[in-house]
Amino acid sequence: MHQVAIGIDLGGTQVRAALVDERGNIVARMEEQTEAHVGPEGVLSQISGLVDSLLATSKLSLVVGIGVSTPGPIDTVSGVARDIPTLSGFADFPLKAELQRQFAFPVCLENDGIAAAIGEWQFGAGRGLANLVYVTVSTGIGGGVIADGRVLRGRKGMAAHVGHMSVMPNGEICPCGNKGCFEAYGSGTAFTKRARARAADSHETRLGKDGTALHSRDVFAAGRGGDFLANLLIDEEAEILGRGFVSLIHIFSPDVVIMGGGLSHEFDRLRPGIQEYVARWAMPAFKDVSVVRAALGQNSGLVGAAALAFLADRPSKETLALVAHR
Amino acid sequence: MHQVAIGIDLGGTQVRAALVDERGNIVARMEEQTEAHVGPEGVLSQISGLVDSLLATSKLSLVVGIGVSTPGPIDTVSGVARDIPTLSGFADFPLKAELQRQFAFPVCLENDGIAAAIGEWQFGAGRGLANLVYVTVSTGIGGGVIADGRVLRGRKGMAAHVGHMSVMPNGEICPCGNKGCFEAYGSGTAFTKRARARAADSHETRLGKDGTALHSRDVFAAGRGGDFLANLLIDEEAEILGRGFVSLIHIFSPDVVIMGGGLSHEFDRLRPGIQEYVARWAMPAFKDVSVVRAALGQNSGLVGAAALAFLADRPSKETLALVAHR
Repeated sequence: MHQVAIGIDLGGTQVRAALVDERGNIVARMEEQTEAHVGPEGVLSQISGLVDSLLATSKLSLVVGIGVSTPGPIDTVSGVARDIPTLSGFADFPLKAELQRQFAFPVCLENDGIAAAIGEWQFGAGRGLANLVYVTVSTGIGGGVIADGRVLRGRKGMAAHVGHMSVMPNGEICPCGNKGCFEAYGSGTAFTKRARARAADSHETRLGKDGTALHSRDVFAAGRGGDFLANLLIDEEAEILGRGFVSLIHIFSPDVVIMGGGLSHEFDRLRPGIQEYVARWAMPAFKDVSVVRAALGQNSGLVGAAALAFLADRPSKETLALVAHR
Repeated sequence: MHQVAIGIDLGGTQVRAALVDERGNIVARMEEQTEAHVGPEGVLSQISGLVDSLLATSKLSLVVGIGVSTPGPIDTVSGVARDIPTLSGFADFPLKAELQRQFAFPVCLENDGIAAAIGEWQFGAGRGLANLVYVTVSTGIGGGVIADGRVLRGRKGMAAHVGHMSVMPNGEICPCGNKGCFEAYGSGTAFTKRARARAADSHETRLGKDGTALHSRDVFAAGRGGDFLANLLIDEEAEILGRGFVSLIHIFSPDVVIMGGGLSHEFDRLRPGIQEYVARWAMPAFKDVSVVRAALGQNSGLVGAAALAFLADRPSKETLALVAHR
C-alpha cells in the first residue's frame, strides 16, 4: 500500500484537487469551477466531493494528510479566513477547523504563493536549493520564499506577498487597494491593459485591430510575427519583471528566482530581457542569480499543498522547521 | 569569572569595539576612526589593537568569541570580502580567515544590517519576537530580518539588502550603481539633498539661509520652530519611509518594523506619518503592524556582533539555526 497526500488548490476560478505520491507525481487529478458565490459551506462540500471522487479513482492508498492552498493573505496559524477577495462569505470563517471536521487525516493550510514555492522546492525547479524566491505572474502577482532551507512564513504565515511591494509612488491602482504595487505593473492583467491602450493609440500595429479583445497571448503571437509594438510591450514587461526580481534578489539573496503563473508560458521570450536586467542592475555580488521557469506549471500549488502534508507527516531534521511553526 | 563576547562594528568611518556580557550590557567600549585608506592589513591590526585595549581594561573574563559586523554585501559563508565600497583594498580578501589567525577564540562575521537586527532581537526592541524587520536609515539604508524565530541569511549570508529595492523606475542614482532604490529616496543623505535643493528654491523658509551647509538635524530643528517647508520635507520623508516599510511588511509579515540609524534620532517626529501610512495603505491583514525605534541606538550592530558570538558558543534549540548555517 503506497502513501499519497491530497493536495487542494482553492482559487477564485478553479478548485483543483490531486492525489500526489511521495515523489511529487500526480496519481489522480480533478478540477472544477469554484462555486465562489455559494459561500464557505458550499466550497467546503465541493472540496469534500472532490476528495471522495479522487479516493474512489485510486486503489487503496494510505492518505497521510491533506494540504489546502488558498488565496491570501490568510492567517494559517489560527486557520481563520478574515476575508478572501475572490471568494464571498469567508469573513472570519474558521476554514482550517471546518476542513479538519470533514477529514479523518491531518489538514494543513497554506497561503497559495507559499504552497506553490513549496511545490517547486520539493519537486520542481528549486529541488535541493536552500534559497529560492517563487513568483507567480498571472492575473495578479504572488509568491513564496524558501530561505536557509526553510519555508519563510512570518507572522500569521502571511509572508511573501511580493506583488504588493511599491514600485511607483502613487502609481496605478492595485486590486489590493494601494497604488503603485508591483502587481499593478507586472501582472498579466496589467500587461494586457497596457497592450490594449497602446494598440488603440497606434496605427502601426496589427495588435487589437481584428475587433476581438486583445489578450496577452495575442501580444506574444504578434511579437513572434515581427510586430514592432508587440515586441516593445514584451520588452517593457521583461524590464518591469526584471526590476521587481532584482529587488527581491537584494531582499532575499536567493540561489534562484522561479517564475510561474500564466505569463511564464511565454518565459522563453521574456527570459533574456529579465536576465539582462539582473546582470546589468543587480549589485555585483548578486548579478549571477538565475531566473528560471517553474517546472510544475499550473500544478506548483497543487503539488506543494500535497507536499505540505508529507512534510507534516514525517518530519525530518530538514523539515522540522516547517511543522514547528504550525 | 563571567563570560563576555567581543563585538566589532567595522564601518567606513568608525571602528567600534566592545566587551558585551550575556545580557547585552556593554562592559567596555572603544571607538576610533577607521584607517580606511591603509588596506585590510591596517584595519586588521586596528581591530587587534582595540581588542587588546578592551581586554586590558577588563578584569579577567572568559571570552566566548568575537563577532565582527562589516559593510556588505559580504559573503559570510566563505568569509571572503570581494569588494567593500567604503573600505579600500578589500578585493577578494579572506577577512574571516585572517581575523581567525589573530584570535584564539572563535570568529563570526556578519553583514552589518543583519548584525544590528540580531542586536535588537536579542537585547533591544525586538526581544522575544519571532518576526522582525530592522531598517537602518542613515547615510544609506540597510537592514536585517528575523523570520520564524531565526536569522534570515540567504545565499552567502547576503539577505536583507532592503535599501536596494526599487521604488521608482529609472529614478535617482543610488550609490549601489542602480537607479531608483529605496536608499536613493529614503536615506538621510537623500533627505538632506532634497532639503538643500528645495530650500534653495524657496524664499519662504529660513532653511539654509544662514550660509552654512544644511543638515538633516537643522531641518528637524526648523520644523520644531514651525518652518513650513521643513515640516513638509519631514512629512514627505515619513511618507517615503512608510511606503518602503509597507513593502517590507507585505514581503516579510513581521511582528514589528524596527527603525535605527541616524534618522531614528528624530523618530518621534517621523513616527506618526510612518504609522499613518501603514494604517492607510497596508493590506487589511497587515495594518496593525507597528513601527518602533531601535532600542540600542548606534550600538545595535556592536551588541548584535557580540550576540552572534554568544549564540555560536552555546547553541540552544532556538539558536541552532543560527550556527548551522556557518
